[in-house]
Amino acid sequence: MRQIGIGLLGLGTVGSGVVRLLQDHKDKISAITGRELVIKRVVVHNPDKKRDVELPDVPVTADIADMVQDSTVQIVVEVMGTIDPAESYIEQLLRAGKHVVTANKDLIAQKGARLVDIAQQKQRDLMYEASVAGGIPILRTIVNSFAADQILEVSGIVNGTTNYILTQMNQKKVSYAAALKSAQELGFAESDPTNDVAGVDAAYKMIILTQFAFGMNVTLDDIAVEGIDKISLEDIEQAQNLGYTIKLIGAAKQIDGKINVSVGPALVPAANPLAAVQNENNAVVVKGAAVGETMFYGPGAGELPTANSVLSDIISVTKDIGIGITGNTFNNYRQGAALAPATAVKSAYYFALKMRDIPGQMLTLTKVMAETQASFKQLIQTSSDGDFAHVVMITHEIDLDQLQKITTAVANLDNISLLSTYKVL
Amino acid sequence: MRQIGIGLLGLGTVGSGVVRLLQDHKDKISAITGRELVIKRVVVHNPDKKRDVELPDVPVTADIADMVQDSTVQIVVEVMGTIDPAESYIEQLLRAGKHVVTANKDLIAQKGARLVDIAQQKQRDLMYEASVAGGIPILRTIVNSFAADQILEVSGIVNGTTNYILTQMNQKKVSYAAALKSAQELGFAESDPTNDVAGVDAAYKMIILTQFAFGMNVTLDDIAVEGIDKISLEDIEQAQNLGYTIKLIGAAKQIDGKINVSVGPALVPAANPLAAVQNENNAVVVKGAAVGETMFYGPGAGELPTANSVLSDIISVTKDIGIGITGNTFNNYRQGAALAPATAVKSAYYFALKMRDIPGQMLTLTKVMAETQASFKQLIQTSSDGDFAHVVMITHEIDLDQLQKITTAVANLDNISLLSTYKVL
Repeated sequence: MRQIGIGLLGLGTVGSGVVRLLQDHKDKISAITGRELVIKRVVVHNPDKKRDVELPDVPVTADIADMVQDSTVQIVVEVMGTIDPAESYIEQLLRAGKHVVTANKDLIAQKGARLVDIAQQKQRDLMYEASVAGGIPILRTIVNSFAADQILEVSGIVNGTTNYILTQMNQKKVSYAAALKSAQELGFAESDPTNDVAGVDAAYKMIILTQFAFGMNVTLDDIAVEGIDKISLEDIEQAQNLGYTIKLIGAAKQIDGKINVSVGPALVPAANPLAAVQNENNAVVVKGAAVGETMFYGPGAGELPTANSVLSDIISVTKDIGIGITGNTFNNYRQGAALAPATAVKSAYYFALKMRDIPGQMLTLTKVMAETQASFKQLIQTSSDGDFAHVVMITHEIDLDQLQKITTAVANLDNISLLSTYKVL
Repeated sequence: MRQIGIGLLGLGTVGSGVVRLLQDHKDKISAITGRELVIKRVVVHNPDKKRDVELPDVPVTADIADMVQDSTVQIVVEVMGTIDPAESYIEQLLRAGKHVVTANKDLIAQKGARLVDIAQQKQRDLMYEASVAGGIPILRTIVNSFAADQILEVSGIVNGTTNYILTQMNQKKVSYAAALKSAQELGFAESDPTNDVAGVDAAYKMIILTQFAFGMNVTLDDIAVEGIDKISLEDIEQAQNLGYTIKLIGAAKQIDGKINVSVGPALVPAANPLAAVQNENNAVVVKGAAVGETMFYGPGAGELPTANSVLSDIISVTKDIGIGITGNTFNNYRQGAALAPATAVKSAYYFALKMRDIPGQMLTLTKVMAETQASFKQLIQTSSDGDFAHVVMITHEIDLDQLQKITTAVANLDNISLLSTYKVL
């Protein structure tokens, strides 16, 4: 059987998983692709470090030039992470005629368009299924199964760390700080968790999903990003009392041919399938004009789930090589990006407020709402400690402009302060 | 731009949806496939019947020979349903060199293997994504994204009619008969609902899923099939009290390289994502050795969701024609079918029993359990009307052999009768 030579850049958790799956499912992969997939070379930062996997007779070096020049390697798997030097490495490899599979979402979200162009010029495949939602085959599904549909919205839970933290707060009634600490101890959060808890990681994934669902390239600056680090246990409990679960939701919506992309905490009704997504799992909802609402659920990270997505890319590239059709972009749906204006972006909102327990405050609040043409769906005064009353309200749909006006108006009031504001799904 | 001629067999609900999507998303489909897809001919039982869609200048006749002989048609979409004459029509079309896309699950489940062979002989594509779980792209996902993984189990809710009925019983606390009646009035159940409520429709879908997940061909005789028509409102309520929802679950599991396929009602824990699947929606869970648990959720039927799956097949065939690689089977993973023995198939079970309210009955019951080496996880005496006590028990895992022994032993007892038995997920 003819061979396909595989090169690995990086041999950490995901890299080891790729080696393991290639070894364990050798026969099935050969049966499907008609090729024997053989690891020919590994390049890592530190070749002397002890590894979990055994690769006898495979050269392991630190110099990217070794990989670039190895003519036995046709497909290189980049699982080293970070942008520098991964971007330059992938560029060199593509220019040298290698096909590339990567799991690097930061890179694809920020430099993907450029690398995709280079791959196309050189007629090489560049695939990155594992860059979004680890084990969920969401990118390939959008390409293959929504081609004849018009996607109206792609949204969901695309960061496992924050979902783990929120699940712990929900189930164990612990504070954000305590939940973060336990996530760090269990390895679900990094020692510097900023990228995850501030919503940046989720935003990178939404950049890639937006490209696939709408064919539009957006940047981090185009996305309203809010993290979970200001969510209090009181917010979680209050939401629960009202029948909601707070989740970090990434959403890209089409509004009159333009799009709005956001990442932020939102109240999800208990009956919504996203409310049931627990711990480090991810779920992506795709709404199509024809199909309606579909959801894809699974592990968002982890050695073998991510490695499986890498393997599905390797198999796809191998088939393309066999048929002689490499160089088609992973997603060939492209159109100019246009962002929806603030007045077109609508949602219901939850407001938690603290007001001095003196007559007339509720009247003041309802006046603010009336002036911005916003109406309540629910308004509850939950408790008073004598001096201050706690009030939560859920509005009917308002636009971002109205939201801004309400928060500014409340900030100017003497006896009412805004504790938190979240979208309501 | 070069054309691909499409023929339609049948122009009912799904057929009209296919016409609509082809018309509405013409430009996007052309951008992706590089071809213009044009409907060239329609064959239906009754050409004079008034239709919802307009197809000016397209000949509509009743004779399959018209389609077979039309050299402008390359891909035929079969959406007429039933086995006879669809099987013979598809065979004639494949032999005449047409590619075929079908949504006909009864046909594929029962005659698929034969038609797949004919297609392969003639180097033609035969695809049927819409035959399982309507709008959920589950077959293509298994082929593309689990190729490097070993699937351990594929299971879920694959019949919308029964899920609608069970959801109504659950939410509105109505009897099976009342829920069925309302489903019929709303068009979610047919006037003769047997195929759905007896679990046969779900079993056909499990035959196809088993083929894709395990490469094995099984028949209806290989599957233990139980319907929902004996589920009482009391069962539903009792399950709810214990924290479960009753769903009709199709499951194909790999056990030591052999498989077990079943369809039947099961108690699903509230935290399981399947418990949240409401009304006519479907959801398929795929457990992979590497990936772990993933779930794919969406509409199980309907004009446009099903039509979208048909379109994803048409686009796939069009790409294959463009590249010149038609004739590969939709699923090329095949191995000999071997069924797991009853002693290897294990599950927890729920038993609802009625026992005469006299001393010693609980002792008799616990003796039966001890003799079959089965142990309780929960045992609750729920109520007594003076003469009879109602008891429910949930066992730890037992095998099908033990299940058989327990039910036989209880049937032989004078003062205890078994009301219902369901699997517990």
